[in-house]
Amino acid sequence: MGNSFGHFFRITTFGESHGSEIGVVIDGCPPRLEISVDEIQNELERRKPGQSKITTPRQEKDQCEILSGVFGGKTLGTPISIVVKNKDTRPQDYNEIARKYRPSHADATYDAKYGIRNWQGGGRASARETIGRVAAGAVAKKILRQFSNVAIIGYVKCIKNIEASIDPNTVIAEQVESNIVRCPDVESAKKMINLIEQIRDEGDSIGGIVECVAKNIPKGLGVPVFDKLEADIAKGVMSLPGSKGFEIGSGFAGTLMSGYEHNDEFYVDGNGEIRTVTNYSGGIQGGISNSENIIIRVAFKPTATIRKQQRTVTDEREETILVGKGRHDPCVLPRAVPMVEAMMALVLCDHLLRYYGQCKVL
Amino acid sequence: MGNSFGHFFRITTFGESHGSEIGVVIDGCPPRLEISVDEIQNELERRKPGQSKITTPRQEKDQCEILSGVFGGKTLGTPISIVVKNKDTRPQDYNEIARKYRPSHADATYDAKYGIRNWQGGGRASARETIGRVAAGAVAKKILRQFSNVAIIGYVKCIKNIEASIDPNTVIAEQVESNIVRCPDVESAKKMINLIEQIRDEGDSIGGIVECVAKNIPKGLGVPVFDKLEADIAKGVMSLPGSKGFEIGSGFAGTLMSGYEHNDEFYVDGNGEIRTVTNYSGGIQGGISNSENIIIRVAFKPTATIRKQQRTVTDEREETILVGKGRHDPCVLPRAVPMVEAMMALVLCDHLLRYYGQCKVL
Amino acid sequence: MGNSFGHFFRITTFGESHGSEIGVVIDGCPPRLEISVDEIQNELERRKPGQSKITTPRQEKDQCEILSGVFGGKTLGTPISIVVKNKDTRPQDYNEIARKYRPSHADATYDAKYGIRNWQGGGRASARETIGRVAAGAVAKKILRQFSNVAIIGYVKCIKNIEASIDPNTVIAEQVESNIVRCPDVESAKKMINLIEQIRDEGDSIGGIVECVAKNIPKGLGVPVFDKLEADIAKGVMSLPGSKGFEIGSGFAGTLMSGYEHNDEFYVDGNGEIRTVTNYSGGIQGGISNSENIIIRVAFKPTATIRKQQRTVTDEREETILVGKGRHDPCVLPRAVPMVEAMMALVLCDHLLRYYGQCKVL
Amino acid sequence: MGNSFGHFFRITTFGESHGSEIGVVIDGCPPRLEISVDEIQNELERRKPGQSKITTPRQEKDQCEILSGVFGGKTLGTPISIVVKNKDTRPQDYNEIARKYRPSHADATYDAKYGIRNWQGGGRASARETIGRVAAGAVAKKILRQFSNVAIIGYVKCIKNIEASIDPNTVIAEQVESNIVRCPDVESAKKMINLIEQIRDEGDSIGGIVECVAKNIPKGLGVPVFDKLEADIAKGVMSLPGSKGFEIGSGFAGTLMSGYEHNDEFYVDGNGEIRTVTNYSGGIQGGISNSENIIIRVAFKPTATIRKQQRTVTDEREETILVGKGRHDPCVLPRAVPMVEAMMALVLCDHLLRYYGQCKVL
Repeated sequence: MGNSFGHFFRITTFGESHGSEIGVVIDGCPPRLEISVDEIQNELERRKPGQSKITTPRQEKDQCEILSGVFGGKTLGTPISIVVKNKDTRPQDYNEIARKYRPSHADATYDAKYGIRNWQGGGRASARETIGRVAAGAVAKKILRQFSNVAIIGYVKCIKNIEASIDPNTVIAEQVESNIVRCPDVESAKKMINLIEQIRDEGDSIGGIVECVAKNIPKGLGVPVFDKLEADIAKGVMSLPGSKGFEIGSGFAGTLMSGYEHNDEFYVDGNGEIRTVTNYSGGIQGGISNSENIIIRVAFKPTATIRKQQRTVTDEREETILVGKGRHDPCVLPRAVPMVEAMMALVLCDHLLRYYGQCKVL
Repeated sequence: MGNSFGHFFRITTFGESHGSEIGVVIDGCPPRLEISVDEIQNELERRKPGQSKITTPRQEKDQCEILSGVFGGKTLGTPISIVVKNKDTRPQDYNEIARKYRPSHADATYDAKYGIRNWQGGGRASARETIGRVAAGAVAKKILRQFSNVAIIGYVKCIKNIEASIDPNTVIAEQVESNIVRCPDVESAKKMINLIEQIRDEGDSIGGIVECVAKNIPKGLGVPVFDKLEADIAKGVMSLPGSKGFEIGSGFAGTLMSGYEHNDEFYVDGNGEIRTVTNYSGGIQGGISNSENIIIRVAFKPTATIRKQQRTVTDEREETILVGKGRHDPCVLPRAVPMVEAMMALVLCDHLLRYYGQCKVL
Repeated sequence: MGNSFGHFFRITTFGESHGSEIGVVIDGCPPRLEISVDEIQNELERRKPGQSKITTPRQEKDQCEILSGVFGGKTLGTPISIVVKNKDTRPQDYNEIARKYRPSHADATYDAKYGIRNWQGGGRASARETIGRVAAGAVAKKILRQFSNVAIIGYVKCIKNIEASIDPNTVIAEQVESNIVRCPDVESAKKMINLIEQIRDEGDSIGGIVECVAKNIPKGLGVPVFDKLEADIAKGVMSLPGSKGFEIGSGFAGTLMSGYEHNDEFYVDGNGEIRTVTNYSGGIQGGISNSENIIIRVAFKPTATIRKQQRTVTDEREETILVGKGRHDPCVLPRAVPMVEAMMALVLCDHLLRYYGQCKVL
Repeated sequence: MGNSFGHFFRITTFGESHGSEIGVVIDGCPPRLEISVDEIQNELERRKPGQSKITTPRQEKDQCEILSGVFGGKTLGTPISIVVKNKDTRPQDYNEIARKYRPSHADATYDAKYGIRNWQGGGRASARETIGRVAAGAVAKKILRQFSNVAIIGYVKCIKNIEASIDPNTVIAEQVESNIVRCPDVESAKKMINLIEQIRDEGDSIGGIVECVAKNIPKGLGVPVFDKLEADIAKGVMSLPGSKGFEIGSGFAGTLMSGYEHNDEFYVDGNGEIRTVTNYSGGIQGGISNSENIIIRVAFKPTATIRKQQRTVTDEREETILVGKGRHDPCVLPRAVPMVEAMMALVLCDHLLRYYGQCKVL
């Protein structure tokens, strides 16, 4: 258990980092949706390793195949299975860690729980698991776009202490993709790239914050009490590897305001729609979308794999030294952008289908 | 749907704020657990309105009854139904808002989604819904305590810009309960109380941050990928009314560190147990508990109900003015402490039973 | 776990046979449905003990109350809690069985699994648990009726070897309720009543078969593969106390036909609708309703509680004799009719909401 | 949705009959279980088409591959993905039915619900979907065998009106596999084979009954109320293509007995274990296994695909004639045996893990 996400647009991911393939099964996709391998591949390209000088040098094409659920270019309403074959597996890179637990990795806890682990590249704990999420997210994005032109745009807001200045309400996807760090603030982007290169050369790593906005959201997504829209989004992004914090709307900064300042007053817009003057709520009130932009932020810690010497223990409980070798990703943030977008898309799509029904939504 | 939480220790809450009663059904509680009404009532006392001068003046005894699932003082393994009768309901207080949407409340989104709402006191969107959570949380706490002496201690970390100095690793429950704001830092507590009183008298409200630590956690709770322990905790607390942000371990501040600084090195302690030197991970690695303290923080926005005039619209989409009347809670933080603890307990207990089995755990 | 049924119209039942109350929480009911206590009570009257000379003599009014989810006579879309207080509890009747396991009851297996049981009247294993199902079934029936005038009619098809002659396609509810055994074939009904009275006087019990038809079913309910409509109905009725067999359409008798005989040929009716000439499929093909009548049969074994002497063992594993005392139900069939109807209604309503959405269906 | 089964040992199947591959993802398998491709392939051989002269002549090797979840011959506790590539696909065989609905097939209902279908060989409604069930069932059987030597033995009890004489308590797997119809009563087997050959040559089809026994079941599997063990088994087998009826223990015949005759008296056996003298309950009481043999029967209608002329309609609602061509399976019963065994194994394994926990069970 634990390898499925969502209830109405439900995905199940499978595959180890250095196994033969990685994949996802999507259950609940609406029928008659046109979807192509290319649309999915486009998202995978944004997630794949080796895409630029500031990410992990692992070389993977991450070429996906659709194995079921699509017939004549259209979805059948049956499970869609999408897989990516692993190519650049180097089990030998992992000989040192077959016995030694890498600090702040999942090695020790997996062993404590399961009594066995695939020590090659982290197995299921690897960020490669997110291939299935991103692939399924591409399908979810298509559904959302088709339903009401929903746009989900994530970008790097901060790298370490470099904070970009970006207006979530006007940002467009092209700005995000205009540079390798996926930060639409060009000046900040340059500084971020420089910092990541410097850290990479030191064999160290850094983290940061991804901000993500979802626009053109229909009213009524999300349900009261436990399955509030923001609660499901929080679960989704907090299940991404390396995430340590989540905010929606005013977030932690909202605790510094008074109720009078923070309340989003209502008005009626030119189309007769009820809108809010401000959007400290972040597009969700009482757990239900109110059609304002949904805006979240996700904190990612610095990647655990580094090329510096650290203290650790073996699976025999002997203290030892780990000298990081192999390939390391100095900063996951540029690749975390499509991951966050995917989780946002999956949750929104799940609630869209919950609200409208699998067969009635499109 | 959406009124149940957890899979193995599964709770379903029901009841509107001004209906006849509020309650919870717990499904999956281990058999033969000794549990009394008093143990549950103790937690409800910490959550109930009117408990001090700095909370909502609604007068409720919130006396609970156990209606099923317990026989001779012990749980049967069958559903435990716990209810609290509503006493101090004043529907007349809500006449103004029968038609007017309160800013940053759930009124407008509920109406958009359901086409009907119980406008008396917010219905299900009221914080009264959390009675069921806190009652079930008391049972979860008992199970956790009995299993391995797990202690869950929440407290007010910040009220607006007043930040308390508290060591989560040494704080004890008695310190939390020693003052009405539930902040173990006595100096900060005084300032917080003063600030809340001032804001209350202004008819306004303020928010803050609850920190919560869980100690003596067994290794192995949580599962990889989507149902990571921190993802489930995030969902739990982000489903609390008014929460806008969540952090675990190093949280957002962790994005300012390098991997070398952030990684928690391993060592073997005097009992031969694998431990970490630091705990930036916050007690969870790869989604699985590592036996270090689990430490989280939750941001609560200022309460939406205030006694100041605001712009809003009616359910007929006419712009109007809302003059806040009735009772208002200037700061939910002291009462949010048991709510956060309850959600932490519910998630931990759910994963404990997932790991050990309902009938085998105790 | 195990006390909830359905995913979209989800019910959770609670309460022991001789506890203070029995109830159900319905999660997912569409909003704005008019529902009254009387409509629910009408169904409970058909299920309640003591309703005629041929059922259990336990005296219960089984008066229900709605405690949440309804406001001004209409559903809110929030959880509906319905309870019935237990009145005629006689724990003293059960002194003998506090230690002795009743043959073919759940006493021994509950004790083996939970190490504790409420021995008063069977606890959760009592047919009293079905109060919650029947109450929720009344709400489900209302939704189905409102959606497309769905009618669900169950009746007693067989008592022991007395088989009634009934055409499921023309039978109406009034015929079922015209006699105390709920068999629309008047001649057979008389024989059945006589047989039950004879068996009752012997202190023994008998079983039989309930047949149930659902009419005016919209096309498209049910989903392929595991959640086929008939699979969910089978689970529902096989979870009723005492059921030992289930059939749909041609059932076991269908195994005696050839494919050429059994296949339901298609034609187009006067309204341009695709229909089948015969209905051996029982209204479901490929797991999905085809708008023909859904027809099922459920076998109920003779009730386990009898007033005859039997061999058994104690919870200390000593062999002993059990002399049945207390009240016994010679034949559950008349009361099983509303139970089967309820499970049919719950499954159909669950799939209706799955297909159309909670808020969009009505 | 609807393509997953089980909660603790959860399988998700995917793939269309004539797509590129068919497969299953198993989530929740215990770690450290030794499992080989051969063990899974052995079960698939019993299910595969073309295995004898009395089954469908489609030629498929149905060779499976394990793509994830196994490392060094042992399960990791992560999702196990198993696939079979489709080889003998003949889309041209299906040209006639691209437009014409086959009687008693899922064609019409799929189209009504989804507005699209893969008309090549039935898509997901094909019995090929059960490859995933049988593959996962092989893993479930291994777990059950390892836990307490559970043996699950299915066999053909009836073909049309030929009923075999078999003692479920003494039957062994070798007897089942000794002939191509999988009926351990050799005399009946011969008659069955002759009858199937005759029907095959007529271009028609026949059905029958599979009986299945599960031995060495631990006490305590199953939970009260809705998730009774027999209810879950009923759902499992009623989700198999072509099943029309289900019985457990005394089944429909039990309705002809009195309570005194039907009750299973208790005694204490030589090992001090509580046992029942008779087993009309079929190994389950109150929804929970009592360690007696679990015995079920499943009715399968005659296969819908025949080579005879029948009336039908097109997807344009025009009446027409369908002349069955292509390959047809005169009797699915021999191949249904491993399918029923698989569903029994999946349900038992699901409840075993629910009771003991994924990581604690082995």
